[in-house]
Amino acid sequence: MDTSTTVFSALDQRIRERLEASLAELGDLCRIPSTHANPEALRQAARFVHRALARRGFQVRVFDPGHEPPVLVAERPGRRSRTLLLYNHYDVQPPDPVELWTSPPFEPTRRGDKIYARGISDDKGHLVSRFLAVDALLDVLGELPVTVKFVVEGSEEGRHSEGLRALVERHPDWLQADGVLWEFGGVGPDDIPLQYLGTRGIAYVLLRARTMPRDVHSGVGGTLVPNAAWRLVWALASIKGPDERIRVPGFYDRVQPPSPRDLELLAQLPPVLEAYQRQFQPVLGFLRGVDDDLELKRMAVFEPSANIAGLTAGYQGPGTKTVLPAYAEAKLDFRLVPWQRPEEIPELVRRHLTAQGFTDIEVVDLGGTPPMKMDPDHPFVDLVVAAARDVYDKPMYKVPMRGVTGPGYLFVHRLGLPVATAGLGYPGSNIHAPDENLRIDLYEKAARHVARIAWMMGQT
Amino acid sequence: MDTSTTVFSALDQRIRERLEASLAELGDLCRIPSTHANPEALRQAARFVHRALARRGFQVRVFDPGHEPPVLVAERPGRRSRTLLLYNHYDVQPPDPVELWTSPPFEPTRRGDKIYARGISDDKGHLVSRFLAVDALLDVLGELPVTVKFVVEGSEEGRHSEGLRALVERHPDWLQADGVLWEFGGVGPDDIPLQYLGTRGIAYVLLRARTMPRDVHSGVGGTLVPNAAWRLVWALASIKGPDERIRVPGFYDRVQPPSPRDLELLAQLPPVLEAYQRQFQPVLGFLRGVDDDLELKRMAVFEPSANIAGLTAGYQGPGTKTVLPAYAEAKLDFRLVPWQRPEEIPELVRRHLTAQGFTDIEVVDLGGTPPMKMDPDHPFVDLVVAAARDVYDKPMYKVPMRGVTGPGYLFVHRLGLPVATAGLGYPGSNIHAPDENLRIDLYEKAARHVARIAWMMGQT
Repeated sequence: MDTSTTVFSALDQRIRERLEASLAELGDLCRIPSTHANPEALRQAARFVHRALARRGFQVRVFDPGHEPPVLVAERPGRRSRTLLLYNHYDVQPPDPVELWTSPPFEPTRRGDKIYARGISDDKGHLVSRFLAVDALLDVLGELPVTVKFVVEGSEEGRHSEGLRALVERHPDWLQADGVLWEFGGVGPDDIPLQYLGTRGIAYVLLRARTMPRDVHSGVGGTLVPNAAWRLVWALASIKGPDERIRVPGFYDRVQPPSPRDLELLAQLPPVLEAYQRQFQPVLGFLRGVDDDLELKRMAVFEPSANIAGLTAGYQGPGTKTVLPAYAEAKLDFRLVPWQRPEEIPELVRRHLTAQGFTDIEVVDLGGTPPMKMDPDHPFVDLVVAAARDVYDKPMYKVPMRGVTGPGYLFVHRLGLPVATAGLGYPGSNIHAPDENLRIDLYEKAARHVARIAWMMGQT
Repeated sequence: MDTSTTVFSALDQRIRERLEASLAELGDLCRIPSTHANPEALRQAARFVHRALARRGFQVRVFDPGHEPPVLVAERPGRRSRTLLLYNHYDVQPPDPVELWTSPPFEPTRRGDKIYARGISDDKGHLVSRFLAVDALLDVLGELPVTVKFVVEGSEEGRHSEGLRALVERHPDWLQADGVLWEFGGVGPDDIPLQYLGTRGIAYVLLRARTMPRDVHSGVGGTLVPNAAWRLVWALASIKGPDERIRVPGFYDRVQPPSPRDLELLAQLPPVLEAYQRQFQPVLGFLRGVDDDLELKRMAVFEPSANIAGLTAGYQGPGTKTVLPAYAEAKLDFRLVPWQRPEEIPELVRRHLTAQGFTDIEVVDLGGTPPMKMDPDHPFVDLVVAAARDVYDKPMYKVPMRGVTGPGYLFVHRLGLPVATAGLGYPGSNIHAPDENLRIDLYEKAARHVARIAWMMGQT
């Protein structure tokens, strides 16, 4: 039997040889504008992934969750009966504001050692880099070292993984595995590889202020009748003030502070202050003027947030228009920490606004996702960390919690499976923002890491 | 020489006979979408008006104010050397939100006794109804009873009448007259004819919040870096709270309360409470819960306002997007009462925001117009009121101040001319809003009123 070192060397060589072809396949997938505004493109992306998996000898099952895009579940048996499950999604964020992109968001464009496209990092690059790992394993070993499953959904971006949720509810058996690799992963500032062990939850609400049946002239109504934009502004200001404390009663009731082990892991992480400054370049500094490294690490992930994702009212075109808006709306996302419950948030906001007199503002529940938290010392986590050792130049750090949200709670808290991360993300990847991009070197490393994980699972 | 009664009867008959042809001419003008987003349509509207005036024997001069659409000044000498000046504008408000219109805004549509189109009431209907008055005078008398001048500009809507301002600066002599008729006029609730004797001023500012070079993912930055939408919300809430008091220091310093004569005139006006309720249908009632008639009359016109005309931030499309906006903006118009100065407002707001710590918010001055106030007992005003007597079923009331803004200060306070109003407006005309419309009966009355004013000036 091959030694791991020999196998790794052969895997690395095949990945290198197949790199350009793999990037071409990724480019083809990124040219499909699979946003939720474009159902036909979502179907096209699903067909693309279906074909890509079938071509690699996977048995593909299509789960139809009804009103959501299909979820693909693919399986190819391997040498050992242990199973590695890879989770990804083929839907992408909207590209707005399109005018801030350097190249068109759905025309993948290589500049230097990066490729720019909407969805190339979140999450198409992760998916196709895993195809590359599978191809290399098959090239080198003639078979997969363990059974590999893919679950690829189309409801991750702004749809709260409704497709995956329905699948977990209806066919939990399709997803049985000994370890799950998450949709993302990668390096932090200074290219330090990171192992992410938790995600915040999210509750998304829409506030709709309606003060009159229709807009009126601001000269006529301005000192007579309520302006929906003002009502919305005051309602929002009642939810959070400049001290960043969320004023909705009950909002913090279920918040569990980080454990001593969480804080120990945070303290071990490389410093973040300068990297964050470079990444965000905030005009007036960080929130509340914080400039302490550990405090920045803590607040970035172990605090819940109330974020205005969008504001709309009245006239937004060029020049001036003297209108008094009868309607205004705000999109708000609340990031949640263990063990806040997303389903409770809209009702808390509703009660708060009513108590503050904002009975003219409707709170619409746009769905949510609970927070997720893995045991940071689970054996599968340790295997994934060990597999990273000779791929990256630096040791992999365990990150107890991440700021973003993902459907991992379905695997960890509903199915009881261990989940770890491996991927190509980096702080400059601009996911959910203009000029989203992928670093080609990290793409290659992600494929090498995933191939090693499968191999090492086969050795246990 | 004809008696006034005989002349009025002949004028009324000609106006009735010419009504449909005049409405057809108005329809042609309303089909030109002369918003400031469409410079070609503005030029087209100017040419239309030019031809209409020339066809009626007016000598037309075109004043080019540089960056603004042309101002047309037309004159046709009359029997007497006294001069009546008619002011109008050919530009219109943007039609947004277009989807709330029952019929397309630039396809004039007759439904019952109304015609719907953007700009048909503000201000194209007023202009063409005055052509109709001129036509009738020429038909009946063979000449005009006094010299009539038209001044028609294209910079009234959201452009602070820059064209007219430049003309007043450069050629005040072109505008000499013995009386000016305003761009608007008409009836209030219950079809009571009203004589408007003042307009509030306006100062328009744009607030631009910029917290970072670019948007970031709300899961990544939400508890770390400032959100421009939140900054804007808090800045706005610092400008005005739910008590409607404007908190910008110095804002009220130059406010002069209404005179005893102003309050007397307000008290004489018909009650407004029920009409306002029908007109606005405010979900939570009037501002500050006011339901006293005289107080509603007073606050509607003798208080300055801070109105949010538009709010823009982040993602405004369908569904959800988890973005933390780096940029947000608000359009604000402040209505000003005598003798607030529009040019001072942006700087007051700027100083206030700086003092409140909002140094990340830029205040852009989008221009303004001073308030205007006529002597309510000027002889020209009394002539116009008298001329209305047998046109409308009810006596004309003097309204000491109106909520809206207009360039009348240029005539009253720069050129020292008396200004009065005569027109076809009514409370349901929806100017600056979807389904703007004109009542055909009031169109006819406006023409009859203007024809009488010219005739009566010729008798003095």
